[in-house]
Order: sequence, then C-alpha cells, then structure tokens
Amino acid sequence: MADIDPQIARGTPASGSTPGVTTGPIRGSRKIHVGPLKVAMRAIDLEPSSGEPPLNVYDTSGPYTDPTARIDIMSGLPELRRDWIRARGDVEEVAQREVRPEDNGQLGPDRSASAAARSGNRNGGVQPFPNVRRTVLRARAGANVSQMHYARRGIITPEMEYVATRENLGREMLREYTRDGESFGAAIPDYVTPEFVRDEVARGRAIIPNNVNHPESEPMAIGRNFLVKINANIGNSAVASNVASEVDKLVWAIRWGADTVMDLSTGRNIHDTREWIIRNSPVPIGTVPIYQALEKVGGIAEDLTWDIFRDTLIEQAEQGVDYFTIHAGVRLPYIPMTAKRVTGIVSRGGSIMAKWCLAHHKESFLYERFDEITEIMKAYDIAYSLGDGLRPGSIADANDEAQFAELYTLGELTHRAWKEDVQVMIEGPGHVPMHKIKENMDKQLQVCGEAPFYTLGPLTTDIAPGYDHITSGIGAAMIGWFGTAMLCYVTPKEHLGLPDRDDVKTGVVTYKLAAHAADLAKGHPAAKLRDDALSRARFEFRWRDQFNLSLDPDTAEQYHDQTLPAEGAKTAHFCSMCGPKFCSMKITQEVRDFAAKQNAPVETFVAAEEAEAGMAGMSKLYNESGRELYMGAGGREHD
Amino acid sequence: MADIDPQIARGTPASGSTPGVTTGPIRGSRKIHVGPLKVAMRAIDLEPSSGEPPLNVYDTSGPYTDPTARIDIMSGLPELRRDWIRARGDVEEVAQREVRPEDNGQLGPDRSASAAARSGNRNGGVQPFPNVRRTVLRARAGANVSQMHYARRGIITPEMEYVATRENLGREMLREYTRDGESFGAAIPDYVTPEFVRDEVARGRAIIPNNVNHPESEPMAIGRNFLVKINANIGNSAVASNVASEVDKLVWAIRWGADTVMDLSTGRNIHDTREWIIRNSPVPIGTVPIYQALEKVGGIAEDLTWDIFRDTLIEQAEQGVDYFTIHAGVRLPYIPMTAKRVTGIVSRGGSIMAKWCLAHHKESFLYERFDEITEIMKAYDIAYSLGDGLRPGSIADANDEAQFAELYTLGELTHRAWKEDVQVMIEGPGHVPMHKIKENMDKQLQVCGEAPFYTLGPLTTDIAPGYDHITSGIGAAMIGWFGTAMLCYVTPKEHLGLPDRDDVKTGVVTYKLAAHAADLAKGHPAAKLRDDALSRARFEFRWRDQFNLSLDPDTAEQYHDQTLPAEGAKTAHFCSMCGPKFCSMKITQEVRDFAAKQNAPVETFVAAEEAEAGMAGMSKLYNESGRELYMGAGGREHD
Repeated sequence: MADIDPQIARGTPASGSTPGVTTGPIRGSRKIHVGPLKVAMRAIDLEPSSGEPPLNVYDTSGPYTDPTARIDIMSGLPELRRDWIRARGDVEEVAQREVRPEDNGQLGPDRSASAAARSGNRNGGVQPFPNVRRTVLRARAGANVSQMHYARRGIITPEMEYVATRENLGREMLREYTRDGESFGAAIPDYVTPEFVRDEVARGRAIIPNNVNHPESEPMAIGRNFLVKINANIGNSAVASNVASEVDKLVWAIRWGADTVMDLSTGRNIHDTREWIIRNSPVPIGTVPIYQALEKVGGIAEDLTWDIFRDTLIEQAEQGVDYFTIHAGVRLPYIPMTAKRVTGIVSRGGSIMAKWCLAHHKESFLYERFDEITEIMKAYDIAYSLGDGLRPGSIADANDEAQFAELYTLGELTHRAWKEDVQVMIEGPGHVPMHKIKENMDKQLQVCGEAPFYTLGPLTTDIAPGYDHITSGIGAAMIGWFGTAMLCYVTPKEHLGLPDRDDVKTGVVTYKLAAHAADLAKGHPAAKLRDDALSRARFEFRWRDQFNLSLDPDTAEQYHDQTLPAEGAKTAHFCSMCGPKFCSMKITQEVRDFAAKQNAPVETFVAAEEAEAGMAGMSKLYNESGRELYMGAGGREHD
Repeated sequence: MADIDPQIARGTPASGSTPGVTTGPIRGSRKIHVGPLKVAMRAIDLEPSSGEPPLNVYDTSGPYTDPTARIDIMSGLPELRRDWIRARGDVEEVAQREVRPEDNGQLGPDRSASAAARSGNRNGGVQPFPNVRRTVLRARAGANVSQMHYARRGIITPEMEYVATRENLGREMLREYTRDGESFGAAIPDYVTPEFVRDEVARGRAIIPNNVNHPESEPMAIGRNFLVKINANIGNSAVASNVASEVDKLVWAIRWGADTVMDLSTGRNIHDTREWIIRNSPVPIGTVPIYQALEKVGGIAEDLTWDIFRDTLIEQAEQGVDYFTIHAGVRLPYIPMTAKRVTGIVSRGGSIMAKWCLAHHKESFLYERFDEITEIMKAYDIAYSLGDGLRPGSIADANDEAQFAELYTLGELTHRAWKEDVQVMIEGPGHVPMHKIKENMDKQLQVCGEAPFYTLGPLTTDIAPGYDHITSGIGAAMIGWFGTAMLCYVTPKEHLGLPDRDDVKTGVVTYKLAAHAADLAKGHPAAKLRDDALSRARFEFRWRDQFNLSLDPDTAEQYHDQTLPAEGAKTAHFCSMCGPKFCSMKITQEVRDFAAKQNAPVETFVAAEEAEAGMAGMSKLYNESGRELYMGAGGREHD
C-alpha cells in the first residue's frame, strides 16, 4: 500500500479480490437502520412461500455492507458518535502528540530515534493515514469520561440506548418470552431497556468500550447478560504481512461477525497501521501496548521503562484504541510458579514482563503504576482488558497455581479500577480440558466481582495443531454457556504461523457458531429464532433461504453446488447426500400429506384403541389389492 | 473401476492421488505389532535431543500404513481372525446365497428382477469383487457365536485379548496411575486386562463387533470404559460417487482414525460396493439394511415386506457386515408425535419405516419381528445398532416426546436382545442445544442398561451449514465426556451434499480430537501422554516432533510452511505468528536460563522476604549502569 490508488481505496465489490477491502451486502441480507439512533442491523428476507417476515440479525460489518454508503478507506468512516461525545461537554481538544520514528519501529543503526530522523526515512515506505486529525480529545481536568462514570451517576447515554436497541433486535419478533436454557445464575432480561444497560455498566457487569477518539465505532456491550461476543485478532509480525492486508483482514473479519478486533501488530509501522485500522473500524479496537513499547527499545525487554510505556499509552489513547490489554497480574512472586510448567509462559506480554521483572529483580511496573494507568484510561474512556499473562499454554498447566495467583491479583485490580469508575474486563485461558472449564468461570465470577470474562478458547486438547479453531471452539462454546462474555477467536494457524484472510474467516465463523450455541444454551429468549427459521427453510426445501439464514451463505451454497450446481436444484426436494428416493425430509412431507388426506388430524390419527379397531379394516383393503403381507396387527394375529 | 488395473489395485504411495487407495506410513509414525497376537499400533519416534522414548498411539489404519504389507485390493486383506473363529468349532460352512440383480439395484423396466436378468446386464458396468468366497460361515444349529455369549460363559476369546492390548498401549508408559478427570460414574480401570474386557462385554456395557464372515477385521471395543471411538460414513447415493471412490474413502477414513465405518450406500451396486469395502476393511463395517431393501422394491416404501428385509439381512450377514442399524423403535403410535416438529423425521430409515407403517396402518415389522432378527444376528455375531429413527433434526425438536418414546422402546429391545446374548449399542441424536445434552446421556444409561451409546454429534446449533463438523464436534466432545462410547462423525457437507474425500478427512480429524478431548476430561489415565509430549515438543521448538505427534502431521507442517517454508525454520525458535523477538516460548526459555545462571533453583528464586532484601541491592547494580529507572521495591520507595 505504498501509494494507495484512490479507486482501490474506495473498496472492492464482494466478488473482487484485488487489494482493498471487501464491500457489498452479505448474500441474502439487507442493511437496515433501526430507531432514532439508526442502529445498524441486517434483515434476511425469506421467500414469499414461507409466509414468514424477514429475520433481523445482529450485524458487525459496518458501512461496508451498506450499498448506499460511500466507502473511502483513505478518509475513514463517518464519526457516528461525534455529537454525542461533544454534547457531554466534558472533553477538550488537545494537540496530538507528535509521531516519532520509533513509533513505527524506525530506529537508526544505533537504535536511536534521532539517527532514524537524520536518515530521512519516516516509515520504510508505508504511507501514513492521509487524514490524521491534528487535534484529539481528552477529558477536561478533573472529568471522567467513562461510560461507567455516567452510568453510576444515573445517566443513560446515547451509547447505552444504541446498545439496547442492538441487543433487542430479535426480541421484538417474539410474541411471548419463553425460557429454555440453563444460565447458571445469569440475569438475562426478557427485554433490554436502556436502563438495564445502564445498570449493568454501573455494576461493572458489562462494558461499552469506546474511546472518545474513536467516534467511528458503533456502540456494543460486552457482558454476561447480553449476547455472547467474539473477538478477531489481526496485525502483522516481523516476519509477515503489511498494512493493506491488515485493513483488508479487519473488514473481512467484521463482515463475518467479529464484534471487536485486536490489532496485535509486532512488526514495522505499528503506529501507522493502527491509524488505518481505527479510522476504518466500526467495531472497538483493542491493543497490547507493551508490544509497541518493546519495539521502541529494539526488542530488549530489560530496557522497557515506565516512561516509554506511559508515552505509548498516550500515543495509542490519542489514536482511539478502545481497550488495552495490561498484564498487571504478572507479579514477580508468581513467576517462579511457572518453573515446573510444561509450556511456561505462553502470553507474549506475560513473558516480556516476566523477563523484565527477573532482570531487574523488581515488581512489575504495570502493577506498581496501576493507578497511574487508570488515570489515563479514564481521560479517554479506555477499558482495561486485564491480561492473563500466566494463562496455561498446555493441558498439563491448566488451572495451576500460577494461573490462579494471577487471577486473584486481577480481582484486586478490578476493584481498584472500579474505584475510579474505569471499565474492566478480565482475560482468561488458554488450554483447559473440559472438566476444568467450569472452575475457571466460577472462580472468575467470585474473585472479579462479575466483571466480564474474555477467554482465548479454551483449547480442550493439545494434539491437533491445524485444527485449533475446533479444539478451542469446543471450550469456547462451553465457557460461553457458563457465563463468559466474549470469546477470543483461534484460527487454524494457531501455534503454526500468522493467519491469512481465509483463516480469519474460518476463525470468525467458528467462534460465531460457538457464541450462538452458548446463547441458545443460556436460554437467551431470541437466540432460537434463527435456528428455527433455518430449520423450517431446510424442511421446506427453501434452499436459498437456508443459505441466506446461515452464518456463511457463500460457503453453504458453494458446498451444495459442488454436487448439484443446476439452478433447478435450489428448489429440489433432495440433495446429493441421499437423492430423491431417500430424502427423509421429502418422505416426512409425504407422510404428513398422506395423513392429511385421511381427513384426520395427524396428532390423533392413531390413538391406541382406534388403531387396533381400524388396522384390521385397513389391512383388508391392502390385501384386496393382492399383495401378500405378513403383517400382524399389534403382533398378535395375521390377516 | 470397470476394469481394475492390478497396479492401481496394489495401492498408491501416500504422495499419489490416482485412482486406488492411499498407502504408506503416516508422517512420523512407524507401524508396530505388539504381543503374541501382533496387535497393530503406531510408534511416533521423537528427536534424540528430547530424551524421550517413542510414543505409542492407537491405530485404525490397518495394513495400508505398514510398509511391509502387500496391498492388493482385488484380493482383500489377510484373514486375521480366521483361525480363532474356526478353533471355536461352533460354525459351519454354507453355500453363499446367490447374488441377484436386484441386490445391485438392477431392475428391469417393469422393476422385476427377471427382466433385468433377461437384459443380461449384471451390474451396470461395475466389476464385482473378484475373489468372492463361495462358502461362508454360520453358527451350527443351536449355537450362538456372539462375543457376549462367550463372555457370559466366562470365556476370554482372542478378540478380547486383542482389545485389551490395544486399549492398554498408553498405560504401559505410565509409571503411576494418577486420575485427573470427571467420568460421571464410569469405571475406567488403571489397566485393562482381558478379564476386564470379558466382564464389560458380558454385562453388555461394551461390544466387540465382528461378524464371523469378516475375519479381516482387527478387533476393537465400543464401550464407555474404553477409549471413545468414532465412526465415519461412506457410501454412494443415486446422485453421486462410485465404487472406486468409496473404497478410497474407506482407506482414507481409517488412515486418519475412523474406528468403524458405515457403508450407507443408497445408489446402484450396493452389494458389490459392500463386498469391495468389507474385504478390504480392517475396521468393523456397519450398514442400514433397510436402504438396500428399499432399493429392491424400486424405492416404494409401502412395498417393503418382511421377507425382502429378512433376505437382505442374510445377504449382508454372509458378506460380513459387523453391525446393523435397525429402526425397530419407530413404532406406529409414535409417528404422530412428530407431527408438530419443525423438521419431522430426519432419519432416512426412520422416515421409510414411518411411511410403511402409516400406509399399512400396522405396527412396524422391525418391531414385530424383532426376535426373528435376533436369531439371525446371533448366528453370525452381528451387533445391533438400535436406530434412532425419531431423533431430532433441529434444535426445536430436541428431547421431545417422540425422541424419548423411541428411546424407551430401544431400552425394551436391548433387554430382549440380551436375553439371547446378542450384542447391542444404542444410536442417539442429533440436534441438541448444550443444556439438553446431559439429559440424553442420563436417560440412555438408565433406560438401556448401560448399553453403549452411539450418537450423531449432536449439533449444538442449526445456523451453520458448511461448518456442521464443528457445531456437532462441540456436542460430540461433551456427550463423549458424559459417557457416550462412539461418536458418528459429521462432515462440512452435512445438510448440503455428499462428502468428498477432503470432507471425510476433515470430519474424521474433527471427531478424533473431540473423542480425545472426552478421554482427557473423563480422566483416562493415559490420554494426557500425547498432549504432554506434543506440548513439550512445542515448547522446545522440536517442530517435526510437534507435527508428528499431532492428529494430522501433513496439515500442521503445511500450515507452518505457508509462511516459513525454509528447512531451517523447522528448528527455529519462533514461527511467523510472532517472529523471533516476540516468541513467548523463546522468552520463557531465556527467563529460565537467566534464573539458572543466578545459581538458584527457580522455584525458590524469589521468596517474598528474600525479594525485599535483595531487590534494593540488585537495583543498585542497575543504577550503577547509569540507566534511569523509576522502580520501587514493593512499591514503597524509589532508589
């Protein structure tokens, strides 16, 4: 993306695959905007023969799937929340901190920034985002701009109203609220009011991550009593990828359902890459600031300092990052607890902090300086994602002493952050066999005051690299059912390499289905609407409806067409699995038709007594046709 | 496969993809044969630097992965069990029933067999298996050749000994038997003795499916107290596939781990296809005889008769089918219970029987004639797989009245079969949301006397066609944990079309990882050995070992090489996910090396008091180097 071609920057229709981003509606879906806040959703229209209204589904894809939107990734998205933020009157404009070469990993030969500046090479050939704002927002002195602060003062913000409408979309279709699930003590309401959202945020049981400098974001909530959310990870590494790929992956990930995206870049051009991403993202963006801080000291963990870290927090806060992963629980006394582990410390941030602590023989500066970090968070409304630096990276290490020691510290820090009305979520494992998953949820609820839990899987076995989206999809579905609020995806490339865009899609769809399976099991009152609509379409051979209602209509149709591509097959009452004679759904329909022709309601068609009386008569009818049947009525006598 | 080229029939090395079957070792594995019965397994050799012995793993791939075996699919596999069967002296040779055109779906224009014979077209161009035996075995008059019969008479057969060795393979590596799991009351032993196998089979809690006419099979057990097993489905349909593809899929499926295979063909050449499959299968083969019976009556369910069905049972029994799915629980009074369902009856066999029952207004002949079916089963040692014809095919229908009514009947039939010492397993659902899964297991255990449970998934949501191997992998892992003995795979093509060989592999590996996750969670004493070995290899950057220990070494290596293909990368201490600076595993090793250099055991490196005393001194060291550090010891004072 050295020089961005404006035509490419305006997006590529969904059928294209040139550099740029994928635009255009998802097959079968129509973008709608609901209510005075014009909350974005999708409507799936069904065939008239179904007699069913359109099904509305939650939508994370942003303006990219809106055919009326003008997409220009060089300009970024519209600032949806701008007026709401300013109307609160508690922010001021400040000059943005100047971007330095080391922010983009540019260091001179002696690894100093000045050497890089002298060499005149800003950023190794990558174009900075062309429309960087010269001023950014920050809380006025003494103000706290976090949604939790407003919520605790009884204020219902437009963001909370947006969330309520978004979370309600399915419920409006229900005529009655029946509950069929096991939520393990969650408090999922029949109907989500803005007041309910306010109360959940005030309690800390939900967060609405949205930095005042990310006005492009469509507000969303992460919390046990809302729909289970998923996160996709993007970002380059020193070995692979570039800015164009990362923006493309962002848009691709949200197209398929990612509720938030983390930019985990660890390579070059971290600052500029992030700017392109945030400006073009309708979903909250998370980061792990320690990565960029490490780049600034040339990769030498021991050289990290509080000042560099603090400066990095400001840099990223001004760009608009919505949540920071902070590994403040990797405390010096805990590090030796990992000595006997099979896979030690698998978290990048955790291992960096562990190295720093041991090298300096000092307590973690993230822990020591936590209250100062909190002051920064509240000036921009950035949420904490308290990192699980000591999470288990193998089945052998699951639920060990190191892991839970850190969890207890995260609980302590949650309450410290809440004293300042700063939003918090808690990161979780990892690799955990199924029988140990619930313990994680129970402990986290107990220790962290019901702050939202945000797990990575967990993977339920180590033996299937190449399939870790599945080994972890199992654990994710289960821990989502038990109460986890957001599930961080895992792609097929986990443990093996950096994911490409196909891997991103596979990871996202896998985690969407896991999150939905959790919603169903929790008894979310509206979750089942989509399953039922799809199953009715399946039963009635409305193939297009079945595809359009599914999480990935393109793949569903493609798989069907591999063996039955003809257009006529889309209304055929069979598929290639069984063919026309054996299709059980077709036969079931014949059974129902037959029963109906007998002019009896199928339900009462064969009451036990009637059956015995009638069977002999009916058998006689058949015998008259000359067919020989060895059939007994009730097993007692033969005709 | 109209004329089989003998060279192709001898197999194709694993790198090939020409018509034929895939042979050659699985990457990194070495075939071994253990004990006096030469039980087949695989050994995975690890790099010398690991200091670890080879890891033995359970192996279903048969002689195809044995480089010393001579493969000739025109001759079939060696008759492993031949002498054991004959030595029992309770079988006699009989002339095989003659194959008729209608056995291969050949009917004349008036749908009669004679017309087909007159037309001289035996089987539409497919070559019958060239080495069909002219005589087959059957129990002598009055004898019962089922493994359950022997077990109940206190006899330990060679089959039971084989099973014990196979199930023990990992346990021999354990120095101690620690249990870490939750088995919900299962009785998994520390060590599997042949006596334990006998007892489980005698109780009906496990089955060893092996027809006396399938002597090529390597004995295996299906039961809650053994390793969780998986089944793969193959078979053509009227719309797709051919014999060559099906034999190839068989060998491909067992290569990747299928413990049994069901031939669900519903198209042409059912008899000949099955002969090719059984003669070349080292794993038990299951079928659903009603499919072939339906083909014989030209697809008209109402024309099915007991005689045709019985004849089909004999035909298939003589070929060597090891278990039959019999939908004897689809009883006439239950059919109306499906009327209100969203997806009616989704089982092919179930819908066929429902159609028959309603058309004739009679009780199912499978139910009425059950005892006569049992007489056939015991003459060949064929196990019942009591079919779940009324299983739910959508989330909406899960755990409904029809489903459990059938389950109660299956319980009744289990006890009737056991009266005759005939082996039984029970088929299960289907589509079940997570919160309803355990109820299925609990009811089945209660009602069916702990007969092994054999479920299809279950799928935990309906909304992801194209990904149903995953929606069902979640449910399968969970129900396997709860006690299900065998999991029937689901491929990405479920609901959309017939699976190809890639789909077969994806389905098999998905179900292998789900079964293994279940073994881990149940606390199988040896399951964790493989996870631990792989995680150690991962941590030590023994990339080749990591790939070789995984369920799919080819894919793991391929994914790694997509971004780091160079040979040197196979020993590199990073991959493209994070690159050299950020690899947490590399950093963890550095942390351990650093701690070791301090000449202190890492475990006691920083005891709390020592830390406080030592920190000030260490900080002083760093300060002397001139670096400015705002670091506090314990957060209280700055140097």
